[in-house]
Amino acid sequence: MNTVAVVGVTGAVGTELLRVLEARDFPVGRLVPLASERSAGKTVTFKGAEVTVQATSPSAFQGVDLAFFSAGATRSRAFVPHARAAGALVVDNSSAFRMDPSIPLVVPEVNPEALNGHPGVVANPNCVAAIAVMGLAPLARLARIERVVMSTYQSASGAGQRAMEDLIVQTKAHLAGQEVVPRVLKHPYAFNLFSHDADIEANGYNGEENKVVAELRKIMGRPSLPISVTCVRVPVLRAHTISLNVEFDREVSVDEARQALTEAAGVILQDDRAANHFPMPWDASGQDDVLVGRLRRDPSRATALDVLACGDQLLKGAALNAVQIAESLLGV
Amino acid sequence: MNTVAVVGVTGAVGTELLRVLEARDFPVGRLVPLASERSAGKTVTFKGAEVTVQATSPSAFQGVDLAFFSAGATRSRAFVPHARAAGALVVDNSSAFRMDPSIPLVVPEVNPEALNGHPGVVANPNCVAAIAVMGLAPLARLARIERVVMSTYQSASGAGQRAMEDLIVQTKAHLAGQEVVPRVLKHPYAFNLFSHDADIEANGYNGEENKVVAELRKIMGRPSLPISVTCVRVPVLRAHTISLNVEFDREVSVDEARQALTEAAGVILQDDRAANHFPMPWDASGQDDVLVGRLRRDPSRATALDVLACGDQLLKGAALNAVQIAESLLGV
Repeated sequence: MNTVAVVGVTGAVGTELLRVLEARDFPVGRLVPLASERSAGKTVTFKGAEVTVQATSPSAFQGVDLAFFSAGATRSRAFVPHARAAGALVVDNSSAFRMDPSIPLVVPEVNPEALNGHPGVVANPNCVAAIAVMGLAPLARLARIERVVMSTYQSASGAGQRAMEDLIVQTKAHLAGQEVVPRVLKHPYAFNLFSHDADIEANGYNGEENKVVAELRKIMGRPSLPISVTCVRVPVLRAHTISLNVEFDREVSVDEARQALTEAAGVILQDDRAANHFPMPWDASGQDDVLVGRLRRDPSRATALDVLACGDQLLKGAALNAVQIAESLLGV
Repeated sequence: MNTVAVVGVTGAVGTELLRVLEARDFPVGRLVPLASERSAGKTVTFKGAEVTVQATSPSAFQGVDLAFFSAGATRSRAFVPHARAAGALVVDNSSAFRMDPSIPLVVPEVNPEALNGHPGVVANPNCVAAIAVMGLAPLARLARIERVVMSTYQSASGAGQRAMEDLIVQTKAHLAGQEVVPRVLKHPYAFNLFSHDADIEANGYNGEENKVVAELRKIMGRPSLPISVTCVRVPVLRAHTISLNVEFDREVSVDEARQALTEAAGVILQDDRAANHFPMPWDASGQDDVLVGRLRRDPSRATALDVLACGDQLLKGAALNAVQIAESLLGV
């Protein structure tokens, strides 16, 4: 049994990590819940017991076998070296090491081979990249993907627990006829949507969009795969939806695509044309598997398919995938 | 001064038509508010006066100079011939006649020339087509558009007044911890989104998507323009957002595109990278102009730009455009 640290344990992903470790009966001997100074002394519940949260510090990793980091890139850069020095394997949910060529970026259903020879740290992808690749990878086994044009419908959970709470607070205020005052994200969120708030970078893409492009390329082993992406936050609580236009090097039929998605681990084909029932957050929330469907031939290009994917941002987009990586690392 | 009938006057678009006619000081001598039998006897307020709603009937158009139809395609097919027989000009907001080759489909800023020689009936486009073309047409003046890949973020108003009310009712229920029971659209709408509920047609596209493709082609005078579109309803009340990937026959710079949109009538360039402020429903709602921005080079294709457009579904997507058509018809 392992001593397992969770850094950022009081956040939205940290909370979900505990639930996923419990649900999957992950072999945790002792839990070391870590967070900022501000949260030290709080308690979290794990397997029915209350465990006191400690402040993250260089010495907090003594005796830890496995550490999940989910407290942002700055904290990962500061403390992952201490965790490694203490001998812990690290699964890092931040962007700190994802594009480091020496560190694997892994979705276990897609590129498990990337774990071979890992240096003790494995990066967990951005939530949009993780969910999108669950839809793309089974299709990439049918034919070579030549280009992807994506638009996202991202939920509040991607910006953390406080953003989810603020969406609720703002919505209640708006429904009560009161002024809406954004407290976490820049723009009003109640019955609104907006281009993702990550800073715009030199190429005109925002930081989120550039991450999605770079990470999808790395996970898929296609370093120059042409990808266009538009990242948008929508007033949904915890599942991300992605509209994908996927162009192949040959005509791929809807039936072939359906078959490939039906056979793919971690994917549920949700493609009921008669009932008009396709992937949507209401169904994906709390669900481990990524829903993929709305498959149809793109009328503008014979070699392209249009697809919708939807997955729980906190699960396959974060905590579940991190635990799956750890299971692979430990062979459990 | 004209005698003006509004068919479907109690609906979301009908209500907005009255407000737009007032706000633009449209020369209405007498208003003839028409609706279903069920709504007859209700009153609407126009220019400070209460006017009694009548049931739509063949004889209701006697003496009418101009009739706006906004009560669905079935009613338009049934009653537009009576309005024409009574000598009224008709602006039809339904899909009944949009693809009739003898009937112009018009966005006045884009294809006013289509009104030449009109047969007394002019069709008002689908809301997504109207809003999208406001962003596309200025760009099409810079270079030939070769392909458009679009994903929509459509508001409740596109499904009518009852859908807007149901989104509010469902959201209140969800926030109160009560069960959400959809009463208008098929799927839960509170903090959810779903593929547009129009029936799926033979090509795998739904009715809404096929309308958008066909109508954009007609308005832009490009009968075979390659267009991929994914239509999604999001929990927003009254403005539609559209993510567009636009491929040209040459490299069009972001600066050129900005300039073209700045000069375009009916468009506001909303493209503030430093403030991360781009088109969004909160700004577009209640606004005549369509917001266009988030302009950037598509890294997957040198000749393509990524763009966001957002417009009030009830205004440029419906009532405003209909009144603008009427202004052109009457030369006011």
